[in-house]
Amino acid sequence: MDIVDKLTEIFKEFPGIGERQAKRFVYFLMSKNGSYAENLALLITDLKKEVAQCGECFRFFIVPARNAESIAPAGGKNGKNPVNGGINKTCDICGNTSTDSSVLMVVEKDSDLESVKKSRVYNGKYFILGGLVPIVEKNTKSKIRIEELKEKIMREARPNANALGLASRNALQEIILAFSVSPQGNHTDSYVREQIKNVADKQNIKISSLGKGLSTGTELEYSDNDTLKNALKNRQ
Amino acid sequence: MDIVDKLTEIFKEFPGIGERQAKRFVYFLMSKNGSYAENLALLITDLKKEVAQCGECFRFFIVPARNAESIAPAGGKNGKNPVNGGINKTCDICGNTSTDSSVLMVVEKDSDLESVKKSRVYNGKYFILGGLVPIVEKNTKSKIRIEELKEKIMREARPNANALGLASRNALQEIILAFSVSPQGNHTDSYVREQIKNVADKQNIKISSLGKGLSTGTELEYSDNDTLKNALKNRQ
Amino acid sequence: MDIVDKLTEIFKEFPGIGERQAKRFVYFLMSKNGSYAENLALLITDLKKEVAQCGECFRFFIVPARNAESIAPAGGKNGKNPVNGGINKTCDICGNTSTDSSVLMVVEKDSDLESVKKSRVYNGKYFILGGLVPIVEKNTKSKIRIEELKEKIMREARPNANALGLASRNALQEIILAFSVSPQGNHTDSYVREQIKNVADKQNIKISSLGKGLSTGTELEYSDNDTLKNALKNRQ
Amino acid sequence: MDIVDKLTEIFKEFPGIGERQAKRFVYFLMSKNGSYAENLALLITDLKKEVAQCGECFRFFIVPARNAESIAPAGGKNGKNPVNGGINKTCDICGNTSTDSSVLMVVEKDSDLESVKKSRVYNGKYFILGGLVPIVEKNTKSKIRIEELKEKIMREARPNANALGLASRNALQEIILAFSVSPQGNHTDSYVREQIKNVADKQNIKISSLGKGLSTGTELEYSDNDTLKNALKNRQ
Repeated sequence: MDIVDKLTEIFKEFPGIGERQAKRFVYFLMSKNGSYAENLALLITDLKKEVAQCGECFRFFIVPARNAESIAPAGGKNGKNPVNGGINKTCDICGNTSTDSSVLMVVEKDSDLESVKKSRVYNGKYFILGGLVPIVEKNTKSKIRIEELKEKIMREARPNANALGLASRNALQEIILAFSVSPQGNHTDSYVREQIKNVADKQNIKISSLGKGLSTGTELEYSDNDTLKNALKNRQ
Repeated sequence: MDIVDKLTEIFKEFPGIGERQAKRFVYFLMSKNGSYAENLALLITDLKKEVAQCGECFRFFIVPARNAESIAPAGGKNGKNPVNGGINKTCDICGNTSTDSSVLMVVEKDSDLESVKKSRVYNGKYFILGGLVPIVEKNTKSKIRIEELKEKIMREARPNANALGLASRNALQEIILAFSVSPQGNHTDSYVREQIKNVADKQNIKISSLGKGLSTGTELEYSDNDTLKNALKNRQ
Repeated sequence: MDIVDKLTEIFKEFPGIGERQAKRFVYFLMSKNGSYAENLALLITDLKKEVAQCGECFRFFIVPARNAESIAPAGGKNGKNPVNGGINKTCDICGNTSTDSSVLMVVEKDSDLESVKKSRVYNGKYFILGGLVPIVEKNTKSKIRIEELKEKIMREARPNANALGLASRNALQEIILAFSVSPQGNHTDSYVREQIKNVADKQNIKISSLGKGLSTGTELEYSDNDTLKNALKNRQ
Repeated sequence: MDIVDKLTEIFKEFPGIGERQAKRFVYFLMSKNGSYAENLALLITDLKKEVAQCGECFRFFIVPARNAESIAPAGGKNGKNPVNGGINKTCDICGNTSTDSSVLMVVEKDSDLESVKKSRVYNGKYFILGGLVPIVEKNTKSKIRIEELKEKIMREARPNANALGLASRNALQEIILAFSVSPQGNHTDSYVREQIKNVADKQNIKISSLGKGLSTGTELEYSDNDTLKNALKNRQ
């Protein structure tokens, strides 16, 4: 396997990229001048250095350069590079005091969070579950962060006890399950509800799911039965 | 303009059919044997004879053959053929005593009604508005059946007074506006609400709209802002 | 099966139309006023009356109204309506003295002929084979007009002997096989070549096939092997 | 502009990648573990080190590792790294004695060459022009390698005089212009023909273009006029 094949294999893992386009990427890189490739390689390396995974919501985020040292002193102190994905950091949403800490939206993956964030319709906190629960599944816990979610709920329910001492935060009042509308998304909704029911009840925290019904562009004539059913049930 | 062009023009009015496919239809008919075309022409003619427009919901429907005479005697009496779309007939939904007459769903067009009917998630009555209200529009009333809707609401609000004497029916309690989620659909929703507000209030009838939110297949990552906003607002 | 279902079944046979669109056509017709449907039914009936199948090329064509009697006197004489698809008529291409009778293009179906005719790149005669030859096929002759093609070649090779007495026509010099580039199209090309080889050789008539190579819009990067092979072989 | 935006900008230059997918690539990289990104960055850097541009056909190719030193000693001698795209190297097609040196196919870009090579229908030499000639264009020479092509033709016409001493090679007998079938491709064909006419004539070298006509999958019914015209002209 020569270098063209090796790179093709790696590009094939990129989201939405097949064998053919992966190979085109390699030929594209071959034909670009050296500085383009050098710059790309450098940025990819830097990206991983500047990326951290938020210890609160598990989102990947870029650590702002000027704060890098104060946020991640452990890695810097003993002369090592800051650990990639070091988990004792807090992202700009979780660390922002203007974020509404009374609601917590549980999403499947980072791109879901970015999409909701970009829409500016929600100002609360997030939690990245890390996947959906397959309908036939034995070993669920190892794949999604259900235990971490329970711990997060416990922490947010009594913010005064929070180690970071962000005393001004509101206590968590509602958990919003926000999964795609698909058999697996619906199954994940049920599974998570059941798992967090006890801890939420104890803390008097409401559990809700995103509303289902007609979405933008939906035409009644072409709607599926489930969508019509939900739209009718949720009429108002 | 020869007969090929004339037929092409007519087929071009069929839903979803452009010039090219319209012409293919004509060549297709030319190449089929005579009995196929004859049969088609006959069925089209019969269709219009068997079709009536319901005087209650304005839906087009097929008059069952065995009832044709008793349902539409007026046309027959004076020796004329029964008028197509004669409006003193009642369709199998409006005339069915098992239909729930306490709810009335207002839809844009026949195919919307057929879609909801087929989904079996709704057992109430319908009303075909006959179109959407364009956002910039002066002469709305002439295009949609807003006056007919008001009269229908009046009638259904006090079923005992109904001329047909269907005394067992329930009084109308809720009007469900069921338009597509688009600027024009939303505008029609607002327009109809305003127009029927007085009559509905007087009769203590609730006005609702189909629920908006995530529809089947919606992925959070690719949702538009309005859908996210509705899904969040209508969470439960 | 009511009339809606019956018409749906018929529309489903239209080229490119599935169950769903077929049903939409029926609802569309139900909602149109009576004169639209009446007009459509009338034109469909008239179409079959005005259509004839050319006795020379087997194309379906519209018999010009003013010539209908003189062209098809046989049917008229004995008081019957002119027979649909009566085969003793000649279309406007075959009957036109400015058509180049030295070349004969053999195509699969009527719409292929109309497409080539419309392009104005060919001024010769046509012959509609009536189908392609499936690759695995026992009973080919009954499906395509191979015997009729041989007879046509015989007639055109010696135009003086032609019953219609069109003495000024040129003798046939070349037969152009014009089938789609697909396994079945290629197979039909081979089959027809073999079948007409003897008669063509005897009359000193050349057999050719449409050129293969890059077609408009073809990008080298995405070309299949066969197209590249043909483009290379047919370079000039 | 943070690192996410910078990387998004770079990925946007990848063939077929828009803003949205470019950003997804970045989030994808953020979520992958460090070794994946490290490996990718390393391979991209290595790719540019192992890539050379062939001095004969201007194709980019991977220099086989074991030959790297002997092929590119110049760069090594004076202590520098071998120059990326060093132009005194010869690719595996140009340097292969089994390549038929009597034909030279002129293509637009590397991916065209790879496509033809992969099809195994051609065993001759190639020349990468480096682009197409826009129809309205003043400063053409600076963009495509027309002078280099003329020099190449001169060299290949008299192979004995070639500096590399590959005496066994055949003299060039035919140049095949192989551009996409589009207005710009056709224009480039004309332009290159005119430019190389003199030198080719002097050396008695034929100039041809790839054959045009029906390509695989073309249906007669849907063919454009140019394709029909070419298919008819190039019938055989």
